[in-house]
Amino acid sequence: MIDLRSDTVTKPTEEMREAMYNAEVGDDVYGEDVTVNSLEEYAADILGKEAALLVTSGTQGNQIAVLTHCRPAQEVILEAESHIFFYESGAVSALAGVQTRIIAGNRGAMNPAAVREAIRGVDIHYPETGLICIENTHNRAGGAVVPLANMRDIYMEASAEDVPVHIDGARLFNAASAAGVDVREYAQYANTVQVCLSKGLGAPIGSILAGSKEFIHAARKWRKRLGGGMRQAGVIAAPGLIALTKMRDRLAEDHHHARELAQGIQNIEGLKIVNHVDTNIIVADVSSLGITSAEFVDVLKGEGILAGGFGPSYVRFVTHFDVKAAQISEAVGKIGIAAAKIKGKITG
Amino acid sequence: MIDLRSDTVTKPTEEMREAMYNAEVGDDVYGEDVTVNSLEEYAADILGKEAALLVTSGTQGNQIAVLTHCRPAQEVILEAESHIFFYESGAVSALAGVQTRIIAGNRGAMNPAAVREAIRGVDIHYPETGLICIENTHNRAGGAVVPLANMRDIYMEASAEDVPVHIDGARLFNAASAAGVDVREYAQYANTVQVCLSKGLGAPIGSILAGSKEFIHAARKWRKRLGGGMRQAGVIAAPGLIALTKMRDRLAEDHHHARELAQGIQNIEGLKIVNHVDTNIIVADVSSLGITSAEFVDVLKGEGILAGGFGPSYVRFVTHFDVKAAQISEAVGKIGIAAAKIKGKITG
Amino acid sequence: MIDLRSDTVTKPTEEMREAMYNAEVGDDVYGEDVTVNSLEEYAADILGKEAALLVTSGTQGNQIAVLTHCRPAQEVILEAESHIFFYESGAVSALAGVQTRIIAGNRGAMNPAAVREAIRGVDIHYPETGLICIENTHNRAGGAVVPLANMRDIYMEASAEDVPVHIDGARLFNAASAAGVDVREYAQYANTVQVCLSKGLGAPIGSILAGSKEFIHAARKWRKRLGGGMRQAGVIAAPGLIALTKMRDRLAEDHHHARELAQGIQNIEGLKIVNHVDTNIIVADVSSLGITSAEFVDVLKGEGILAGGFGPSYVRFVTHFDVKAAQISEAVGKIGIAAAKIKGKITG
Amino acid sequence: MIDLRSDTVTKPTEEMREAMYNAEVGDDVYGEDVTVNSLEEYAADILGKEAALLVTSGTQGNQIAVLTHCRPAQEVILEAESHIFFYESGAVSALAGVQTRIIAGNRGAMNPAAVREAIRGVDIHYPETGLICIENTHNRAGGAVVPLANMRDIYMEASAEDVPVHIDGARLFNAASAAGVDVREYAQYANTVQVCLSKGLGAPIGSILAGSKEFIHAARKWRKRLGGGMRQAGVIAAPGLIALTKMRDRLAEDHHHARELAQGIQNIEGLKIVNHVDTNIIVADVSSLGITSAEFVDVLKGEGILAGGFGPSYVRFVTHFDVKAAQISEAVGKIGIAAAKIKGKITG
Repeated sequence: MIDLRSDTVTKPTEEMREAMYNAEVGDDVYGEDVTVNSLEEYAADILGKEAALLVTSGTQGNQIAVLTHCRPAQEVILEAESHIFFYESGAVSALAGVQTRIIAGNRGAMNPAAVREAIRGVDIHYPETGLICIENTHNRAGGAVVPLANMRDIYMEASAEDVPVHIDGARLFNAASAAGVDVREYAQYANTVQVCLSKGLGAPIGSILAGSKEFIHAARKWRKRLGGGMRQAGVIAAPGLIALTKMRDRLAEDHHHARELAQGIQNIEGLKIVNHVDTNIIVADVSSLGITSAEFVDVLKGEGILAGGFGPSYVRFVTHFDVKAAQISEAVGKIGIAAAKIKGKITG
Repeated sequence: MIDLRSDTVTKPTEEMREAMYNAEVGDDVYGEDVTVNSLEEYAADILGKEAALLVTSGTQGNQIAVLTHCRPAQEVILEAESHIFFYESGAVSALAGVQTRIIAGNRGAMNPAAVREAIRGVDIHYPETGLICIENTHNRAGGAVVPLANMRDIYMEASAEDVPVHIDGARLFNAASAAGVDVREYAQYANTVQVCLSKGLGAPIGSILAGSKEFIHAARKWRKRLGGGMRQAGVIAAPGLIALTKMRDRLAEDHHHARELAQGIQNIEGLKIVNHVDTNIIVADVSSLGITSAEFVDVLKGEGILAGGFGPSYVRFVTHFDVKAAQISEAVGKIGIAAAKIKGKITG
Repeated sequence: MIDLRSDTVTKPTEEMREAMYNAEVGDDVYGEDVTVNSLEEYAADILGKEAALLVTSGTQGNQIAVLTHCRPAQEVILEAESHIFFYESGAVSALAGVQTRIIAGNRGAMNPAAVREAIRGVDIHYPETGLICIENTHNRAGGAVVPLANMRDIYMEASAEDVPVHIDGARLFNAASAAGVDVREYAQYANTVQVCLSKGLGAPIGSILAGSKEFIHAARKWRKRLGGGMRQAGVIAAPGLIALTKMRDRLAEDHHHARELAQGIQNIEGLKIVNHVDTNIIVADVSSLGITSAEFVDVLKGEGILAGGFGPSYVRFVTHFDVKAAQISEAVGKIGIAAAKIKGKITG
Repeated sequence: MIDLRSDTVTKPTEEMREAMYNAEVGDDVYGEDVTVNSLEEYAADILGKEAALLVTSGTQGNQIAVLTHCRPAQEVILEAESHIFFYESGAVSALAGVQTRIIAGNRGAMNPAAVREAIRGVDIHYPETGLICIENTHNRAGGAVVPLANMRDIYMEASAEDVPVHIDGARLFNAASAAGVDVREYAQYANTVQVCLSKGLGAPIGSILAGSKEFIHAARKWRKRLGGGMRQAGVIAAPGLIALTKMRDRLAEDHHHARELAQGIQNIEGLKIVNHVDTNIIVADVSSLGITSAEFVDVLKGEGILAGGFGPSYVRFVTHFDVKAAQISEAVGKIGIAAAKIKGKITG
């Protein structure tokens, strides 16, 4: 099976397993886990922030960010198909009591003027705007890189109104790699940033939330409330450190594979690539095959390819560490066979 | 002063004052206020619902509806400029913990297909869709009447997915009057409906929330939690009953006045009416006068006209019971003078 | 029927009805209702606070106080049978997200040392203490007056730890009357105070929340979110002003009636008064009659007396404006007959 | 250093490290991590429940239990010094919107009659009782075992009123070991149970929440919202499985050490053991040494003993896997020296 469903399926490398085995640990609730402390310091440093916090998932990092930045009845501005709004089960309103205000973006990027207009003025009828969230790369926009200039412009608008900005950077390292920009360049245009150690970087568990010392101090308490405070968390932090130190540089390879895969798919009759393949995500429209995405995913499975439905007529393919160069051309072949079988069945 | 800011400024009529004076009252927390009971029964009847509840405001009626229909982490679908989303201070997420999902409407009406697409499927990453809200008439769409067919279509989509529908009908009687449709016709396409006794109907305080008996039983407890349970509430219910029995028929007069006022304003250089005047609300663009709406509102005040800003370049005028026929032409004259003064000042 | 269930059943006086009839009103959401403004200024003045806000009920005043003072995950300290904890349907945790920490009081008064000990220190495992609430008079303690010295001591402890204090003073004027203390004396030992215009003071609807200007400004927005913002609220404020100016002095009469009633009940075989009758509330144990409180309440009703069950074996009687001197001895007689009938039935 | 602060400081055993190294993993969000699946099935089985869920901490397991059992504005009954109330930062009210109703227990055990009385009846003024929580062993009661009969009686009262029961069993295996009772015996008297894999069982991270299939299905979604959904969680589950299969039997050894340590401390002048040492926790009063607990903890540290303050005058010692038999007598000696030094300093 070639698993192209998501980069979340990556398994820990041999080096990560050894790091877990050897991890020096302590009770992190007492602040005594040296491996966790190293990871948090290193992560803060590469993100250009004062402090960082290990959390168990990207969702947890985002939720803690909103809980720490906002008060109930405030409004959070986010892109209409962003992960926080679309894929976090409504948690942001249930936990933090904030109202979501969505703005449809262009390839994941909100128009700074639209953001400025959405920031509320002072009126007893209005919620106060408590936070603006930017997702980069943007998953539902097909792994699109939100341009640095766009982030800068939104940050300027937000800062002028004293509204903080948070980056959902679950795949921010992919953006940095693809754009050839240091990740700090992005992070400078936000008060806080969340990055995942799993996904493309391959760690089994964990994300990082970074910001000011004061913010992280408060965030630590919200992590406790969500049950994200762990004991000998060094066993997670150890592979996380390897993810940050050893795995970032190789994301370019995943992007290269994605472009190759996209070129291959483009030549398959009945499939049409609908996203600009900036990073490691490819979205293909299969509707001209006359079947739904769910049906095509099933046929692909029969050919040894795992992919994911992305709405009723799109299929998503994601490249990652566990898919090697040789498997890309193999995948193209098998996807082609799947499409051919469908066409044969339908026309035949 | 001719007060065209809102129909919320209407003062109780002489008959309402007498009704308050004479109101038979009791302790409504014990269910013993006969005037409240009469009002709730009468309101339920004209709305075609099993039961109704007196609440202190339209906002309270809407909030209780959401609290009663939904659980935290559910998603509520509403129009992008609806009152619940735009003007209720983020309460819906703070109190009920629900995520707001907005859809931009056409003259206040959401596209039923867009609503259907926004209803979530079953997935651990998705909030469940808990409620769909429709505002009719739609305030920020300039008092637009949401068509009956649109409401029916949305209700059909919602019912097919077992999602309840709530009408924010703060001005539903205006819609009924303008469309020549019984208010029950609208209410049949929703599980619950809120209508205001104040605004155009002139009662000093109060709104009605109507729905099934079971729903209103649960809503009563949420009203208690919000502190909306009152004691001798008959003093409010008495003028409310007059609002429902005597004042609905005369809303047509307000709409007639609005059309007259609109015609007059249309002829004033520098002002441009931007809404279709379905009911009692007129929205005029003043930007070609070269000033902001706030500045024009100030100048109008100097001429004896009260109006309201509606964003940076729009001004809103609302007709109501306390603005009589003769005042409409007077208002047109004064608005014309105001515009002329601005033009003189700027060009002079 | 002599209605001794609660002082909430009091009906507006003739003067209050006239005040409603004649009330000068405006749109209070614009701050233009002069009667509301007068009431709020007058109430702030007699309570010794900078500002006040008209709300629709005691529950609403209390809920807004907690919402304005606290943030979610804070802890509120309150007496174990206080109204906010016992009778407000869990609203305080549902709306404000605060954890309730109860302390059993002595006749409604919490021990200041117990309060001090309950205030949390700084620890990632602890909620911060956000508020201390005191109820005076204390309803479930049988209308007990919480002593001024107790309030001062708690306020000192709280202030030393920067924790605000709120008085649920639904019947604070009863306390002031019974103790011969100006109500400001109590209010000085709290940051905010809520007092009811209905109950003993006889207004049909409404309570007052008072505090600093800054606090009331924020409270006004929370009132809006709860739907407590009203339009021509002067029709409520007018009788409220009479309640504050004309009805406070006569509370002593209710207390006198309560003592008379208590003396009468004390002589009835099978009934035992279990509270110290400080104000207008009498609690009698009926268990030695061999029946439940609910059964005795039914028998009383047959004799023309309305009273309320207060747990399984206690019955509560409350004196108020609508129970006149002559009715007190009549009530004693009828209660005696009811008890006699029970005894006859059981022993006969 | 002999670390007696808590059993949370236990480090993973060599076997656990090997298990992490070798763990077969998959993406648990897709349900494909076989090690997680094994752990959840095994845990459900030994607890006698249909299903189980791996969570990152005891706090998370408890919070998810409350979120899944309850709706906002319900009331949760718990012991006055229980972990959920005392040590979870107010999360239960912030996240689930429930009101906490505390009952002071006897050695951690609430009186079943008091629980029955605290369950609310049907009344618009009352929150509904949504859940009863029992902590066993009870941490702040000094590791006390809540008797099986007490749990049964509370469960009977609760079931009669259709109120579910949840066990915070962070140290339930200690209770089972000390009482010689199978853990299922306890779990049968609750709808849901949370047990920790860390603490005495030594796993680095993780707890289990168990209950009916339907409950765990809903709980899984709340785990997602709290950010507790992990990817290759098998690396945590693998040592967790060893904790459950290999480490439970040896808890008796910790209890034996605790009794030995207690005997030793009992003979030290100035220290008084204040708890009945049921399991692995010893609480000693140090006030007769004339110093605070914090001061004594400092002196102990100077002697090579880590312990924890437990209020102003109590010190807590906890035995666990990483404290070996030989260290117990060593610890007694050093604690004695610390006490002697204090006495010498004070009297000298």
